[in-house]
Amino acid sequence: MSTLTLADARTIIAAGERKADEIGQPMNIAVVDAGGNLVAHVRQDGAWIGSVDISISKAWTARAFDIATKDLGDNSQPGQQFFGIHTTNGGKVAIFAGGLPLTRGGTVVGAVGVSGGSGEQDQSVALAAQAAFASA
Amino acid sequence: MSTLTLADARTIIAAGERKADEIGQPMNIAVVDAGGNLVAHVRQDGAWIGSVDISISKAWTARAFDIATKDLGDNSQPGQQFFGIHTTNGGKVAIFAGGLPLTRGGTVVGAVGVSGGSGEQDQSVALAAQAAFASA
Amino acid sequence: MSTLTLADARTIIAAGERKADEIGQPMNIAVVDAGGNLVAHVRQDGAWIGSVDISISKAWTARAFDIATKDLGDNSQPGQQFFGIHTTNGGKVAIFAGGLPLTRGGTVVGAVGVSGGSGEQDQSVALAAQAAFASA
Amino acid sequence: MSTLTLADARTIIAAGERKADEIGQPMNIAVVDAGGNLVAHVRQDGAWIGSVDISISKAWTARAFDIATKDLGDNSQPGQQFFGIHTTNGGKVAIFAGGLPLTRGGTVVGAVGVSGGSGEQDQSVALAAQAAFASA
Repeated sequence: MSTLTLADARTIIAAGERKADEIGQPMNIAVVDAGGNLVAHVRQDGAWIGSVDISISKAWTARAFDIATKDLGDNSQPGQQFFGIHTTNGGKVAIFAGGLPLTRGGTVVGAVGVSGGSGEQDQSVALAAQAAFASA
Repeated sequence: MSTLTLADARTIIAAGERKADEIGQPMNIAVVDAGGNLVAHVRQDGAWIGSVDISISKAWTARAFDIATKDLGDNSQPGQQFFGIHTTNGGKVAIFAGGLPLTRGGTVVGAVGVSGGSGEQDQSVALAAQAAFASA
Repeated sequence: MSTLTLADARTIIAAGERKADEIGQPMNIAVVDAGGNLVAHVRQDGAWIGSVDISISKAWTARAFDIATKDLGDNSQPGQQFFGIHTTNGGKVAIFAGGLPLTRGGTVVGAVGVSGGSGEQDQSVALAAQAAFASA
Repeated sequence: MSTLTLADARTIIAAGERKADEIGQPMNIAVVDAGGNLVAHVRQDGAWIGSVDISISKAWTARAFDIATKDLGDNSQPGQQFFGIHTTNGGKVAIFAGGLPLTRGGTVVGAVGVSGGSGEQDQSVALAAQAAFASA
């Protein structure tokens, strides 16, 4: 199983934190490995306490289904094919922006989840984190 | 981290009870501190037993995301950016009216949650409770 | 169903707080009604946050089985007839001192749960709370 | 309410990691703030995935009751005053070694939880992490 390391997770989180600082919105950032298990999490000072769980759930979801949580969300609205998926898996399926798979050589090896601002803000931080891993 | 005391919670709850009596709808009223932990709860005689949990969840939610639960609800409808958030955090995210953050000097130091009537009634009691803290 | 009121709960809690102040140990005190549903809870300043849940569980347990939680605990040790009961009911059965039934005319109408110190301290506060109800 | 920062959490975790490296046992290390909410977590490469949750629960427990989880464990054995406490609070009370409160000026401002080895190993890493905070 190709996966990522704690050193990778720190690179990913550091890039996310820089982006969060840049946009002025403190964030929770979580990274899971290929098994969907948490590798590292940080809550920046002042970030929402309700987003601890959500950042981890977004990362887990992005790896669990190898999909951006925003895209899963598009398919999980009322009337769509996955509507209701958010209550499965003990409720830890996050269906809104901020979770992204992390790939190496075309294989998903983990995921990042970001929570602490608007969906757009969370997504921008997750994208910065993902980009740092891609270029590492 | 600035927080509130049990004496504060009692002032907040007393104001909420007065408003509930005024509108003739018995309520559950809960107050959490800056860490999101319960400080005090009352269920007025005749108030719904299913609202014990909801009042506490509303208070927790308002502190966990530093937002009125009504406003979070507006952003959590199908198609909105936070749709699905209500199943995160073990299901304790309340996305309807009645939860309000409590601030001191511009900092959120806790929150109040009210449940027992219509959304409008819950909100009116929460607003009275919040106002009492602001002027204390 | 004979039960108790919010006014009763306040009398009970006030007595518990006086005892807690007297022994110098801040406490969580919870009161449930005849249905086992929470009527009121307070966490004194400085009391353990992990005891919010426990005080409520103790009160619920004392009414759920019409027994002092300390006595239930004696019957729930390894090898005893109720060993394992603490994982039933979603884990909210408390099997250590601090929860007491509240009776009126020989009928259990609710219960009080106290958590925040040693078993002996919790029990002493619960007894003071119970006595206040008996003499009210 | 005095609390700790993400920078504090990183100092604490770094010291824990050094100790874990020294004893050759990869660990999960988690830090919570004064409200019991997670500030940061790391899982060292090769550390048990079942210990992600336990490290966080140990940190939460040490703050929730302002006690070393090892000491709480001593009081939670069959026949002891807190036997059964491990199923309260939704099962997140950890009653074995590896969780320690973190104090500043005599006040508990957070806690560290370590899981990944024997109780003795977890405790030694938690002690190193705690010492780093005390001397920071």
